[in-house]
Amino acid sequence: DIEMRDMLYEGKAKKMFRTNDEKQLLVVYKDDATAFNGEKKGTILGKGQVNCEMSALLFRHLEAAGIPTHLIKSLTPGQMLVKTVTILPVEVIVRNIATGSLSKRLGAEEGKVLPHPILEFCYKNDALGDPLVNDDHITALGWATKEQLAVIRTMALKVNELLQPVMLKAGLRLVDFKLEFGLYDGEVILADEISPDTCRLWDAATGKKLDKDRFRQDLGQVEEAYEEVLKRLRQAVMVER
Amino acid sequence: DIEMRDMLYEGKAKKMFRTNDEKQLLVVYKDDATAFNGEKKGTILGKGQVNCEMSALLFRHLEAAGIPTHLIKSLTPGQMLVKTVTILPVEVIVRNIATGSLSKRLGAEEGKVLPHPILEFCYKNDALGDPLVNDDHITALGWATKEQLAVIRTMALKVNELLQPVMLKAGLRLVDFKLEFGLYDGEVILADEISPDTCRLWDAATGKKLDKDRFRQDLGQVEEAYEEVLKRLRQAVMVER
Ligand SMILES: Nc1ncnc2c1ncn2[C@@H]1O[C@H](COP(=O)(O)OP(=O)(O)O)[C@@H](O)[C@H]1O
Ligand SMILES: Nc1ncnc2c1ncn2[C@@H]1O[C@H](COP(=O)(O)OP(=O)(O)O)[C@@H](O)[C@H]1O
Ligand SMILES: [Mg+2]
Ligand SMILES: [Mg+2]
Repeated sequence: DIEMRDMLYEGKAKKMFRTNDEKQLLVVYKDDATAFNGEKKGTILGKGQVNCEMSALLFRHLEAAGIPTHLIKSLTPGQMLVKTVTILPVEVIVRNIATGSLSKRLGAEEGKVLPHPILEFCYKNDALGDPLVNDDHITALGWATKEQLAVIRTMALKVNELLQPVMLKAGLRLVDFKLEFGLYDGEVILADEISPDTCRLWDAATGKKLDKDRFRQDLGQVEEAYEEVLKRLRQAVMVER
Repeated sequence: DIEMRDMLYEGKAKKMFRTNDEKQLLVVYKDDATAFNGEKKGTILGKGQVNCEMSALLFRHLEAAGIPTHLIKSLTPGQMLVKTVTILPVEVIVRNIATGSLSKRLGAEEGKVLPHPILEFCYKNDALGDPLVNDDHITALGWATKEQLAVIRTMALKVNELLQPVMLKAGLRLVDFKLEFGLYDGEVILADEISPDTCRLWDAATGKKLDKDRFRQDLGQVEEAYEEVLKRLRQAVMVER
């Protein structure tokens, strides 16, 4: 059986613990919320459990469709067992609708449905503010190989294709989301989390924001939004089966 | 013969005049210098003539090697005749050595020779500060097609391969440079200028900066640097023939 050992690292949203098996980590999802690169801090009650269950549910859905993920199994609420990976320091953002930094930086009309998904790579480095990079930056500065980037690009687009219909069944538009990938036995697999912290989700009928933007923009009903998304997704993924 | 007509537009470094032939523009290079997206302003005496002659000399060199450029012919000092193109709103930066925004944004060590050139695309938009973009941004937001980007990428890398040895013959390291491309009869051709305003050039022996960074960073001997680069390049391109 799995035994929890010392903490490997504590991030902004999760604590990663070593276990008796060095190839397995225990993830404890936190209720802590941060935004604007750590400038805004707060708590979203129940977030840890929601994000953990939602991530698990979506990782299982993706695995079933052929995407390798780090999920081994769910444990007690708010905790999961995952494969220990070496995280590639490249955050992958997939955008279906223009909003946020895309609109601010490039003047793209807020809410505009993009003619094709936009993939963005950011260098995962809090001190530098996770700057946007391109493939040349990544390979020249040694953060991933060309081959790994090709795998990541294909997987990220496939994840988008797989998540969009599930979200729609839950009455949610998948506006954009962030993924992290890691190396496990030399292979690229999907890691980290998929949650309202890392996705923008808009109610398909009303356009209401049901994600971390409620916290970022002080829109209220933050906890309720997280719970709502999870409730709907439990149903949607059940129907899917 | 060519007659100068009204001004089409005045940029920060050049004035573009219509001529009696709508497919030809007369470019008047200015001594005006700007930096930091127009925040710093000044004059570099003789710059217009240097940049015009250097651009002409390098465009001719590139044409001879198969790169289509907008240059038709040199006129009086500081003026040239070019093909009227529709400028693609994508600035192309080619980097051989890490410095400037690459080092600041991504923490790459100043002066580090990159293992391969880094190409960057920026959306040519002064109001937005020429933000870095990737291929997906460009195609999704309609600034260039996938096919045009492929041509631009190939041409930019070939320009780099062609300019590096000429610069080295002139005792200059080609650190990085910016190109602009335009459409002429539906074809992508190289436009704008190639000058110490748009290239970073370091003396190969001493590392001395011989480009607009002398103006940006108030290093003095700005005019002398521009003249020196031109003098050396005249020689280098002669030897080349
Ligand atoms: N399977 C995994 N193996 C190792 N590290 C992981 C795994 N999944 C996620 N991580 C990393 O765990 C850390 C903690 O997560 P989180 O609290 O979200 O961090 P952050 O503050 O960087 O957002 C992050 O650096 C994340 O990349
Ligand atoms: N062959 C060409 N046809 C049309 N426009 C051109 C051509 N070459 C350059 N331009 C454009 O001329 C304008 C003036 O140049 P410049 O003074 O360098 O402008 P900027 O202030 O944008 O740097 C720029 O918008 C540039 O893109
Ligand atoms: Mg995180
Ligand atoms: Mg210019």
